[in-house]
Order: sequence, then structure tokens, then C-alpha cells
Amino acid sequence: MFIMFLPEEVLDEKIRRFLEGDIGQGDITTLLTIPHGIVVEAEVVAKEEGIVAGVEEVSAFLTNLGFEVDALVSNGSGVEKGTITMRIVGDARTLLSIERTILNLVTRMSGIATKTSRVIEKVRDAGHKCRIACTRKVAPGLSYFDKKAVMLGGGDTHRLHLDDLVLIKDNHLAIIGDVGEAVKRARKGASFSKKIEIEVSSEKEALDAVEAGADIIMLDNFSPQRIRDTISLLKKRGLRDKVFVEASGGINELNIVEFAATEVDILSLGEITASTRALDMSLDIVKITEE
Amino acid sequence: MFIMFLPEEVLDEKIRRFLEGDIGQGDITTLLTIPHGIVVEAEVVAKEEGIVAGVEEVSAFLTNLGFEVDALVSNGSGVEKGTITMRIVGDARTLLSIERTILNLVTRMSGIATKTSRVIEKVRDAGHKCRIACTRKVAPGLSYFDKKAVMLGGGDTHRLHLDDLVLIKDNHLAIIGDVGEAVKRARKGASFSKKIEIEVSSEKEALDAVEAGADIIMLDNFSPQRIRDTISLLKKRGLRDKVFVEASGGINELNIVEFAATEVDILSLGEITASTRALDMSLDIVKITEE
Amino acid sequence: MFIMFLPEEVLDEKIRRFLEGDIGQGDITTLLTIPHGIVVEAEVVAKEEGIVAGVEEVSAFLTNLGFEVDALVSNGSGVEKGTITMRIVGDARTLLSIERTILNLVTRMSGIATKTSRVIEKVRDAGHKCRIACTRKVAPGLSYFDKKAVMLGGGDTHRLHLDDLVLIKDNHLAIIGDVGEAVKRARKGASFSKKIEIEVSSEKEALDAVEAGADIIMLDNFSPQRIRDTISLLKKRGLRDKVFVEASGGINELNIVEFAATEVDILSLGEITASTRALDMSLDIVKITEE
Amino acid sequence: MFIMFLPEEVLDEKIRRFLEGDIGQGDITTLLTIPHGIVVEAEVVAKEEGIVAGVEEVSAFLTNLGFEVDALVSNGSGVEKGTITMRIVGDARTLLSIERTILNLVTRMSGIATKTSRVIEKVRDAGHKCRIACTRKVAPGLSYFDKKAVMLGGGDTHRLHLDDLVLIKDNHLAIIGDVGEAVKRARKGASFSKKIEIEVSSEKEALDAVEAGADIIMLDNFSPQRIRDTISLLKKRGLRDKVFVEASGGINELNIVEFAATEVDILSLGEITASTRALDMSLDIVKITEE
Amino acid sequence: MFIMFLPEEVLDEKIRRFLEGDIGQGDITTLLTIPHGIVVEAEVVAKEEGIVAGVEEVSAFLTNLGFEVDALVSNGSGVEKGTITMRIVGDARTLLSIERTILNLVTRMSGIATKTSRVIEKVRDAGHKCRIACTRKVAPGLSYFDKKAVMLGGGDTHRLHLDDLVLIKDNHLAIIGDVGEAVKRARKGASFSKKIEIEVSSEKEALDAVEAGADIIMLDNFSPQRIRDTISLLKKRGLRDKVFVEASGGINELNIVEFAATEVDILSLGEITASTRALDMSLDIVKITEE
Amino acid sequence: MFIMFLPEEVLDEKIRRFLEGDIGQGDITTLLTIPHGIVVEAEVVAKEEGIVAGVEEVSAFLTNLGFEVDALVSNGSGVEKGTITMRIVGDARTLLSIERTILNLVTRMSGIATKTSRVIEKVRDAGHKCRIACTRKVAPGLSYFDKKAVMLGGGDTHRLHLDDLVLIKDNHLAIIGDVGEAVKRARKGASFSKKIEIEVSSEKEALDAVEAGADIIMLDNFSPQRIRDTISLLKKRGLRDKVFVEASGGINELNIVEFAATEVDILSLGEITASTRALDMSLDIVKITEE
Repeated sequence: MFIMFLPEEVLDEKIRRFLEGDIGQGDITTLLTIPHGIVVEAEVVAKEEGIVAGVEEVSAFLTNLGFEVDALVSNGSGVEKGTITMRIVGDARTLLSIERTILNLVTRMSGIATKTSRVIEKVRDAGHKCRIACTRKVAPGLSYFDKKAVMLGGGDTHRLHLDDLVLIKDNHLAIIGDVGEAVKRARKGASFSKKIEIEVSSEKEALDAVEAGADIIMLDNFSPQRIRDTISLLKKRGLRDKVFVEASGGINELNIVEFAATEVDILSLGEITASTRALDMSLDIVKITEE
Repeated sequence: MFIMFLPEEVLDEKIRRFLEGDIGQGDITTLLTIPHGIVVEAEVVAKEEGIVAGVEEVSAFLTNLGFEVDALVSNGSGVEKGTITMRIVGDARTLLSIERTILNLVTRMSGIATKTSRVIEKVRDAGHKCRIACTRKVAPGLSYFDKKAVMLGGGDTHRLHLDDLVLIKDNHLAIIGDVGEAVKRARKGASFSKKIEIEVSSEKEALDAVEAGADIIMLDNFSPQRIRDTISLLKKRGLRDKVFVEASGGINELNIVEFAATEVDILSLGEITASTRALDMSLDIVKITEE
Repeated sequence: MFIMFLPEEVLDEKIRRFLEGDIGQGDITTLLTIPHGIVVEAEVVAKEEGIVAGVEEVSAFLTNLGFEVDALVSNGSGVEKGTITMRIVGDARTLLSIERTILNLVTRMSGIATKTSRVIEKVRDAGHKCRIACTRKVAPGLSYFDKKAVMLGGGDTHRLHLDDLVLIKDNHLAIIGDVGEAVKRARKGASFSKKIEIEVSSEKEALDAVEAGADIIMLDNFSPQRIRDTISLLKKRGLRDKVFVEASGGINELNIVEFAATEVDILSLGEITASTRALDMSLDIVKITEE
Repeated sequence: MFIMFLPEEVLDEKIRRFLEGDIGQGDITTLLTIPHGIVVEAEVVAKEEGIVAGVEEVSAFLTNLGFEVDALVSNGSGVEKGTITMRIVGDARTLLSIERTILNLVTRMSGIATKTSRVIEKVRDAGHKCRIACTRKVAPGLSYFDKKAVMLGGGDTHRLHLDDLVLIKDNHLAIIGDVGEAVKRARKGASFSKKIEIEVSSEKEALDAVEAGADIIMLDNFSPQRIRDTISLLKKRGLRDKVFVEASGGINELNIVEFAATEVDILSLGEITASTRALDMSLDIVKITEE
Repeated sequence: MFIMFLPEEVLDEKIRRFLEGDIGQGDITTLLTIPHGIVVEAEVVAKEEGIVAGVEEVSAFLTNLGFEVDALVSNGSGVEKGTITMRIVGDARTLLSIERTILNLVTRMSGIATKTSRVIEKVRDAGHKCRIACTRKVAPGLSYFDKKAVMLGGGDTHRLHLDDLVLIKDNHLAIIGDVGEAVKRARKGASFSKKIEIEVSSEKEALDAVEAGADIIMLDNFSPQRIRDTISLLKKRGLRDKVFVEASGGINELNIVEFAATEVDILSLGEITASTRALDMSLDIVKITEE
Repeated sequence: MFIMFLPEEVLDEKIRRFLEGDIGQGDITTLLTIPHGIVVEAEVVAKEEGIVAGVEEVSAFLTNLGFEVDALVSNGSGVEKGTITMRIVGDARTLLSIERTILNLVTRMSGIATKTSRVIEKVRDAGHKCRIACTRKVAPGLSYFDKKAVMLGGGDTHRLHLDDLVLIKDNHLAIIGDVGEAVKRARKGASFSKKIEIEVSSEKEALDAVEAGADIIMLDNFSPQRIRDTISLLKKRGLRDKVFVEASGGINELNIVEFAATEVDILSLGEITASTRALDMSLDIVKITEE
């Protein structure tokens, strides 16, 4: 089955690697204390309110391991404290040995989705419609899962790789020197299938970038006021419709509404994926069957 | 070279996989905008105060890629806002394509070390000497890096795998039923090289566990008062010296001093690794040399 | 070093896997017939005219294996029959055991680059400037190398993955039914960082797609005349500048000029990567040094 | 199930890697446009005449992914334009995300089988019975699939690895100097389980090789006339029955009958696997079921 | 299902790699001689007396490959010459191509379990109850399987990794110099979850180690008499109950009873895993069904 | 550098995996007790007489890890008790963490080479010249290393994979039924590059096999007398020179001379690789340099 972004078989390989990293030579506790052949029923329960993410990923993995899984909430839906998200039936030993691996995945993803959703709600409540995006500031190796969680929380995934968007940043410009020249080089060589974005640090650079043909400009560390001024300038020059305007740097959950009020198109926040709080969830065995 | 826990060659393989996950078919931006053959000097700068972790790991990876790296602070040392932690000299294109991968690693690890250190300082400042440990609530696949960061922040790594400690938890007990029986089973089968720990939920279970020969008991979701009561009971029975007492569940940065005041041996906090805030750091190109 | 798209370390891993696939338990011929410790100088020679690609990739791999490599032509440059492209000095046994692996890579890539370049030249000679792109019809597992070769031959790489462009094709439409609806769905959910392309099979669908906001339309199996008609229609409606027009299906080296004459923006040909002829090259040992 | 050369489990791992290379972080098009839970029936249709190869491989992979697959033609059988080769029923999203990977595999393999078969037919039609073999000039990483396709087209796979035949080539001889000495070294050290073959460049070397005990001689770049002369010489010396004679170099589809007419045992052609034309096939969704 | 130490999915990946190493590009014999679609029933038969180990591992692997497997003896149980350990029904080609891989695993593991069991029986028959442990002297890459076999034979697995016990050995001491200092360093930095063991070479070192807080001391190359003397000394100092005493070095099947008579807690023997004799077993096809 | 069978880069990957299996999350002992930056000189010493194998493999691995290695004996040469085989200089922590991995490899390989050599010497001393071969009864995953060790001990490696020799065994014959038919099928389909061997269980089958064109016959579980009879029969029919005769089954170090006296060409023994005794060797630190 296709799990949102990835077919199950590809996903399964990723999660198995996580398990291998945790399990070492094997779960000695379970081996020593739990007899062979016991079947249990367990529930994954949310212990606080939030948006659940990772249910599909974890269900697919469990199913491949031979468990019967009943997902009671869908990926991306809200839960209350006490909501049962999944019901799992299968071999006790196996379940105990993978419990932490699956909880670590689903609680991290749910934490990210919850935060993303909360930020977006603030912006929507204040009446703004700009997109909220994450960045590449993910946990190493977890790009797929972190970005998927952002998407489930209603956010924009931004780049998925270094190969899917030309994004010229400050360090590129430290070498190239000139915004217009940088866009020109990218324009010349980039595949037609890719957009071109560039980070700018002044209104002048913003204009240069748009005139050179950038599809997106990223206003880096601009205050809300400077964002407004830049957008005004673009409007005056008749360029506003030719470009997406992204603001990034120094934006967080507290100040985001101020930024959202600037008519910017996209606000991107590193902290959505870099400062994460796992949503509290537990796996509870609720029934035991001696086989 | 041996990087704390792991030889460089093994570590290098892990970090390369992170890079592969990020880079996809390649860094098109760098390819299109940066000429071949440019050598740059760059600095990795802390943008806030904290404890730096991951410098050795990242330095080893960079050295293998052919960079000259000068680590200006050692793993686990404190930095101020503005401290330069590493100076890197090498191929511009390569550096730009790996910048985010290495920053994601070093900022996550530094964030974890900083939080660990801050928690421990609170406990030490209040005059207590119990150990602060993390749990297995790490980001999937990042066990080595998260636990290493905890260690660099002064914390105890607890289990590294499911194979290095017998730890009987609530879900095992849901099946076995009896604490004494559970310890007995483990005692009988476990290698002499392993300790045996068990989660208990009452004072009676604590006594039973110690009498059955547990090396460590984990008081799960006990209030500070109940922890004190349990320890008193162990003392009264002459069992206090035979066992390590760990408390876990509901402990966080705010209430930890209360828990530390109970004469408990170890306090373990899931949030050290599960609710992380990356330490803000940036990589800045400071010099360019046309080769 | 950064090899066009990929850092050397990532690339090296890919090529090592090719070698492992070829070598099995080892090169018994070389082991049995060539003494230990012989150093040779060898040349990689083009045996026909063409565009060379893969030289950087192979050089990086050889350097990592301890060879001195002198690349005499740069990736993407033209060679005559007899041109020496690389001079290699190092351990005889190792060189003999990897000879075929590196030749298979460099001759395939050069063959693709040569064909791409020849097609583009025909189009340019006829005075047209549309881009020539490849498709995802690559050899399994060789996407990076095949697309890199297209780029070195002057072509456009098109998508590198399924994650870097929304491209709605006939089989998607078989399910969704309506071109406008398909674009609308994509528009709603796609990241701002991605373009949206859709295959159309009639002039009406072309209009619908552009009006629904497609960035690129792919005219699938249109004759040159129908392409012209469609573009005219777009012009008449004032939509020509809002969209890239790609034509695909039934285009080959023989008829491409007819298609290029239609004012289309991009012509994509599966056969560039799916019907390949390796450029003839050989590796010749030219000097032997007993160590 | 055993798929000709490999058990399904081993094969499945290989194809999954191809898919991972193509899919990146996931198929965004399918995710955005195709609802969850749709089941489709699709057909893989030959769009030109040829020999089909890869059907078993692809069927095994699809079955593992949960598809029902009905292979309507067997591996290695001939198809007409329009022949339906497989009927596939299963999850729409998954099928769309793997369509290109499986088509790239089956069309490449079928192209190779078709060419091999056509060459052999020419030789048989002219009344000759020498074997037609491929070489190690395969696409990097595709040795198993390319050689399997040759076999399905009726050809001889030649070496599968560097470890299954001692084959002394020009570059070995550039170091060893003498054909007889080379065979002698190989004879002395080679396992009894391996044959010994050597490339020769003159009639005298051919004689020397056979006298030194070579099991197979490869006449490298010999004209049909020189091949005849060499074989006559071997006959005269009573050595013809002691050795297999292979001719290689400069043989192609056009001139092969001339070579086949020489009483040579084996003709090997690099171009069978190095100059490939994928057989045109498409995957068409023919029925949709809303689940 | 959980196979003693490891979940089936993790185990399956390990065994598949063994198969890949053996099979190369495929089993040509089976391909050429056995028709497609034949189903066979086979038995794995012990050809000598011993303890069988690896049955669960191999059964799990076979089940994943689609075989019906009936394990007639459980892991760790004794067999006579002629005992049928497993009955397997499934595809003939696949079975023939994996026969040697599964036999190599099950015969090696059974050989190790048999030897371990025999050594322990000697010790038990002589009336001693010390534990018999293996060391890390396993075959490269086979740590999981070798240690599992020891466990099934009744032995103690000792360390599973370098991360699950602090074990200070002679080469560490060659650098640190002093036993007390070494234990002190370990004590200070080690996680509470780990035991600390140290190799000692004299009675004095033994005392120092225990006083410094070692949990286990390893008497390295001590004669039975010296072991007795050391234990007496520990008793005299009231330290015997504070420490596990392990003896290692020069202990083998012939002299083990002498060592066991010393009141030592653990005897460890490298030869259990380093000098192995595979238990003789064969796989016999007993019934054939043309499908 | 080319290490006998394999280029260093390929070999290095294999040994790194062994290390990863042993090291887990890292060597905590070394981390806690050995300071950073210490350089040591160590010797690998043979503690008993034998043939050393694996020195090149281990040296290559150590060199890649940054050690200076001086191999004092070459692969396959004899050593006395006390012979220093390698001298190693480098980082103390790294050396301590890999000590066991490299010793496990070199002692296993040396044990196999020593046994092989001893068996061959017995045969040569008795004046016979038949080849001594191993079988595929290797430790799982160690085929390369086990067979390499056999070769270094003077033995014949036999098949390296299932793809390099057609070898029809008892279980194939259980399905096919007839020896002549089996050889005929193989002959028809096998590549000219492969030999064909078949197991026979009677003199009649031996004749049938040779007449059907087998290159090698394997007399399975024949007594020396039956081997002699079979060879006589072959001679009488004039077939002795057309075929290699291998005997296998029930042959061991004790009875091998009797078998060798039969004029058989090859004797193969499973026990060379299946019943191994590691050669006793140790790594001793002999000098310490504080850096």
C-alpha cells in the first residue's frame, strides 16, 4: 500500500533500520521474562491533546511484522487526552521488543504535526492566509518523517532534497557576490522543471532577483516592516505577481502573526522541526491470550 | 581515530547516510552557481550560549571528505554567543552541499547537551548529587548521537540497546503479573554480565523486587513523598545499600529539584532527548580563494 | 570534492557497489597471473568521435583507490578517435580488476552524452532554440549517471525523482477524469517550491490545464501541426507566456527538427536514455614498472 | 519462488533499490491527485514485436507489494504489437508510484532479449550453429538483469562475475608477455572447477595457448579469414577437439553471418548489452474500483 | 514472531545476506536441471547425536520464503542420530538454492550448542555449579548466532557487544598501569546500568580491584590453585560476596573440572566459539509433487 | 591495493561490517579508561605453530583506519610459537576497540590455513599428488575469508558461488532421476564458460555421467576400494582422461592417505572449513607514547 509519500515496502525498510539500531543483539528482557506464544491486545493511547501523525507508517510496519492493526484515527486528525489511536493484536514478545521504536516515531511525528497545526491556527485565527513552511532543519536521517509530519499538520514541506529546488543562500552569495548574476547562472543551467529561489538581504537585492527571473525570493531576517516595504516596492514596479515572497529567520510561534500580517506568501520556521516536543503517547497491553 | 564511543570509520558511515538522505540526486544549486575549484574558509559559530556537542563527530566526517578542520572548542565544553567552534578549509562546492547535514547534527547534539547540563546544574546548585539519566525516548535512528550528547552534557546514558540491561517494565508485568516472579525469571536466565532492573508501582513491589534480587528498581510515576517513603522502608529493612533506586515519570526541568531532594540515586527524564531544541549555530564562509 | 551533482564520498559508494556486483568473490585471473607489486601506467582512449562523460566520476573513484589520475579531457568535452581521455598510474592487479567496471560507466555515460549532443546540434543547426530533455526512462538504478550524462551533452535533466515536480500523466487522468480537477488538486496541496505539469491529449485539455494554473503542459503524442495549433490557441487566449509547453511521444533523432520548428519550449525524448549505444573506449596499459 | 537464477527474496531486494533511487522522498503527484483506497486493474502491453524478458522478475516484485498479477506470457516468449503481457490488480497509488521502475526494467530486458534473439535467428537461418554470447559490457549494476535477458533471448551468458572463469586478456598479457607462460600460471593455481580462457592475437599464440592447456581461446579482432586459418591450423595439429574457439571484436548484427560461417564455436558481441534499445511497452489502467 | 533474541524481520535480513554471499548471480545448476513448478517435501536430519540450535532461525527464514515448515524439535533440545528436526514443503528450485546456506547455519549453531552442553554436563556431573560462559572469540559477523547457540547449550553469553559491560583487559592496563586507578576511572564515568569487570594478574590486583569497586574480576591465566588462593584471600577480607569471580585462559574441555572445583563463579572458554565442529546434518528430499 | 582476490575498498567494507556487529553503540571501556591522544605500538604474536592467513586483509583494514602497519610475515607463510606477524602503530583507543575483530578474523583464517596445509602435507609425504579441496561448508557470510584461507594453506577453493560451476547433487538427482538425463540438461543450457560436475553413487552412474559429457564426477561416499574400481572401469572404457574424478564424503585428516592412494584427482573435505580451530594469536601493546 502507498503510505502517503512512499510505498509500504520502501518505508518498511527505513523503520526496520530504526529497530535494528535500538535492539542490538536482541531484547534480553523480553526473552528472559515472557514465554513464547503469548498473544496480546494493546492500545496506543494519546496522553495529551494534539494532532496525530505516523499512524499509517507504524501500522504498515506492524502489519508486515504479522500484527493485526486497527487504526482508530487517521493520520493528521486531532485527538484528545485519552483517545485510543490504534489497537494492535499479536505476538507479545515481538510487540514488547518494538514498542519503543514505534512510539518514538509516532510521538515525534505527532509532536511536529501538533506544533505545525497550532502555528497555522494562530495565523488563520488572525485572518491571514500565508503558507507556513518548514525548512531543512530536520533531525539527521529523519527528513521523510519530519516533513511528512509537517504536511499532516497542514504545513508546506518546502524542499525535500537538495535536488528539487534551486535555492541560492547567503553562503552561495558570499562566493558569487551578486544576486542578479546568481539568478542568471541558475536560470541558464537549471532544468525547466525546477523553480529558482534566492535569499536576499535588502530591498535592492529583492528587486534585482525578481528582475533577473527568480521564481521565489526569500527575505532573510527581515522585520515585518521591511517585509511590507519590500512588497510595496515590488507592487510599485509591477512585479508582485511575478514572484512568491518567502520570509525566514527569527520567526517563531510567538511573533508569527505580526509576520503573517505583511502579505508575505510563505513564512518558514526552522523551529517546527528543529525544536520538537514529542506528543505524549503510550502503548498499553489490555488483554492477554495464552496461545 | 576513536571518537568517544565509535571508531571514525563506523561513524563516518552513519553520517554519510544522513547526507545521502538530504542530497538526493545532488545539490543542483551549488552545481549551477558555484564554479569548480574554489577553496573557502568557513567558521561554525554559536549564536547563543550553551554546551557544544558533535564537534568531534563532524570534524571526523569533514576530515574524511578532505577538509582541513580546526576544532576550537572540545566536545562538551561551554560556548558563548559568538564563539567560533570550528574553522574549516576546503572545496566550496562540497562544503555548501553538506552544510545543512553537519549543522543539523551538531545543533541537535548541542541542544541536548545544553539541556542536560542545565538540568544537572539545577540539581547540583540545590546541593544534590543524584545522577541525571536519559531514557530510550530518542529520535528514531539517532540513539548513538542523542545518548552521546547526553553524556557530553554530564548525564548518564542509561541503556544503549535492548541488549545491555534487563529492564522489566509495566507491559512485561502486565503479562507476568508478579514482580518477584519477574525478577526470579530474569535472575535465572540473565548473563552474569548484565544488571537487572524492574519498574515498580508500589512500596510493596519495591520490597519484593529488592528481595528477589533486583540490582536496580525504577519507581514509576512516584511523587517525591512516595519516593522518600519507599527509600525509608528500604532502609528500615536494611536493603537500601543493595539496590540502586531510579525514579522516572513526570519529572521535568521545573520540578526536578523536588525529586532530587529525595535521596534517590538516579532521576531519568524522557524529555532530555524527546523534547529537544537545537542550539542555534551557523556556518559562515569567511574567506574565498580561487584555486 | 564535489563531482557536479554529488560529493565524492556519496558517489564513491555508488560505484563501489557496481564493482562488487561484477567482482563476486574476486578476480581470479588477475590473482593467478599477475604478480603482486607491479605498477602500471594506463590510458583510457576514445576509439570513436563523441562527447565524453563520466571522467570526473571515474577519476574520483580511482583516486580513492590510490591511483594517480590525470584527466586529459573535461567532462562534457568532445573527443576524436584516438584521444587519450585519462592517464592512470597505480597497482596493476587492482586496475585489472576494476577495468571493466569503470569502462562500463564511462562508455555508457559518454554514449548518452554523445547522442544528446548530436540531437541538440541538429536542432540548433536548423535554427531552433527549444530545450531537449530526457525522461525517467533510464536504466534501473542509473538515474544519477544517465541524467548527468544528458546534462553533459547539453540536455535538460527533467525530473530527478518522483518528488521534485508534480507531473500528472495519462494514468493519473484515467483515475481523476478531468484535467482541470487534477491541476486544482495539485495546486491545492503542492508545496510552493514545486512546479506543476500535466499531460494533455487535446487542445481543449491544454486550455483547461493552463487556466487551472499548470506551470507546464505536456502535449502527449501531438503531431507538429497539432502542437502549432495548440500554441496558436494559447496565444489567442493570451496564455502563451503563462506556461511552458513540452512535447513528448514519438519524437526521435530523425524527426526532431520538424517538432523543434513548432515554437514548443521543450522536446523530451525517452530514447536518449532508453536506447543507448556505449561510446567505444578502451583502457590500454602502456608502461610497466616492477616495484 | 525461484526466479530463474535467484530466489525471490534476493531479487526483491535488488528491485526495491531501483525503486528507492527513483522515488526519492516520495511520489508527490500521486499523493496529491489520487485518493486513498482506489483499486485499479492495469495491463502491461507490448507496443512492438519482440521477445519479452523480465516478466517473472517484475511479477515477483509486484506480488510482494500486494498486487495480484497474472503473467499472460512467459519470460522469453515472443509478442506481437498489442500483446498484453501482464494483468495487474491492486492499489492505485502504489501502482502509479512504481510504474516507471517496473517498465524500465522490463523494457530494457525485453530489448536485450529481442536483439539477442534476432542475431541468433540470422545465424540459424544461415545454417550455422555456433553459440552467441554476450560479454561483461553491461550497464553498471545490471549484470544479473542484462545477462538474464541474453539467456532468455537464447544467448550464452558468458562469465557472470570475475570469479567464475579464468580469462586472460590483452592487458594481462601486456604484463606477463607470453601466452604460454600465462596459461601455465593459471593452470597451476586455478581451481579444478574453473575453465581457463585466453585472448590470442596471432595463429602462433593460438597454438601456444592450446598446447599450454587452455580450455578456450579467444581470437581477438580476427577477420573471418584469419579465424578459418587458425581453425585449420588447429585441425592440422590435431588440437581442434581440445579447445573451444571464441571470436570477439568487431562482430555485429550486420556481419555476424560471415563470422558464423567459420566453424568457430562461440561468437561474442559486446553490443548486445552495451548498445541496447528498450522494447516499447506501456502500462495502461483499464478499470477502476472505488474501494 | 520474536525469535529468542531478535524479531523475525531483523533476523531475516541477516540470513538473506548470508544467502546473497553464497548465491552470487544465481544457482545455475538448479536453473538448468530442475523444471519450474515442482513442489518437494524435505527433511533436515541429524546424522549424529547432539543439541540442535538454529531451528527457529532457519524456520523463520524458510517461512518468509513461502515454505511450510514443521519444526519437530525445539531449539536447544537433544537429538539422536537419525532424528528428523524439520520437515519442509515448498518450491524445489528455491529449496535447492538455499539448502547449503541454511545447513551451514544450523550445523554451526548446533555444533556450538552441543559442545557447550557437553562441557556443562561434565561440570555438573562433577557436582559443581559455576557458570560456563563464552567470550567474544566468535566467527566474524556471527556474534548473534554463536552466542545464541551458547545460550541454547546452557551457557552464559557474556558480553554481546563492546557497549554492554565495562571490561578492562590486559591491553587497557598496559596503558593505565594500575588496576585501582582503572576501576576508579570506569566507576566515575560508567552508566549505572552497566557492570564493571577487570582482568587481574595477581592476588594483589584482585584485592585492589574489588576494593576499588569492581563488580566482577577476571582471573586471567590463573592455575586452579591460584584461583583457590585468591578466593580464600577475598573471603578473609570479607569481600567474597561483593564480587563475581571469573576465570579465563587455558581452560578447556579436558581440564575444566579442575577449574570448576575452585568455587569460582564463572569459567569462560574461548574455544566454545573459536574451535567449532559443525554437527553433521543433512537435508533430504523425500517426496516430489509435480505441480 | 589488490588483496589477493579483492580490491582493498571492497574488502574494507566487509571487515567494517564485522566491526559494527561487535562494537554496538561503542566501546565504553576504552572511552572511560583510556585518554584521548595516546599512540601505541602493538604486535600480533603467534602463540603456536601454524600457517598465517589474513595478514594482508587485516593490514589493509588497519591502514585505512590510519594505522602504520608492518606485516612481518606474508600471507600463507609458516610461523613458530612466538613469531611476531605484524607490528602496528597508531591511536590507542581505536586499536583497543578493534582488537577482537581483527584477531577473530586472522585467527580463524590462520586456523583454516594451518589445517589445510597439514592435511596436504600428509598426502604429499605419502607421495600422492591429488588436490585437496574444501567445499561450501563455510561459516555463514565468511565464504570469501574461509576459501581464501584454504587457498593460502595450499588447498583448492572449489566453487566460490552457486554461479561458477554446474554441480548436480543428490537432491537434484532425487528430482531428475537419471544421471545421464541430468548431464544432458546441463550440457544443453550451460554457458560454455562453465564446467559441469555431477555426484554419482555407483560405478554405472559414473560411466553414464562421463558418457553424457560431464567434465567432473564426484564419487559420493565411496570407499577407497570402490574409488579404485571406478577409476579402473573408466580406464578400461578409455574415459579416464576425459574427466576429473573427485571423491567426497567421510574423508578426514586421519584416513585421507588411504583415499589419496586411489589415483583420484581431487579429495574434498567439508571439515576443513566446518570444523575449525582458531590459531592462537594475541595482540600485545609493547610501547606507549603520550601524544
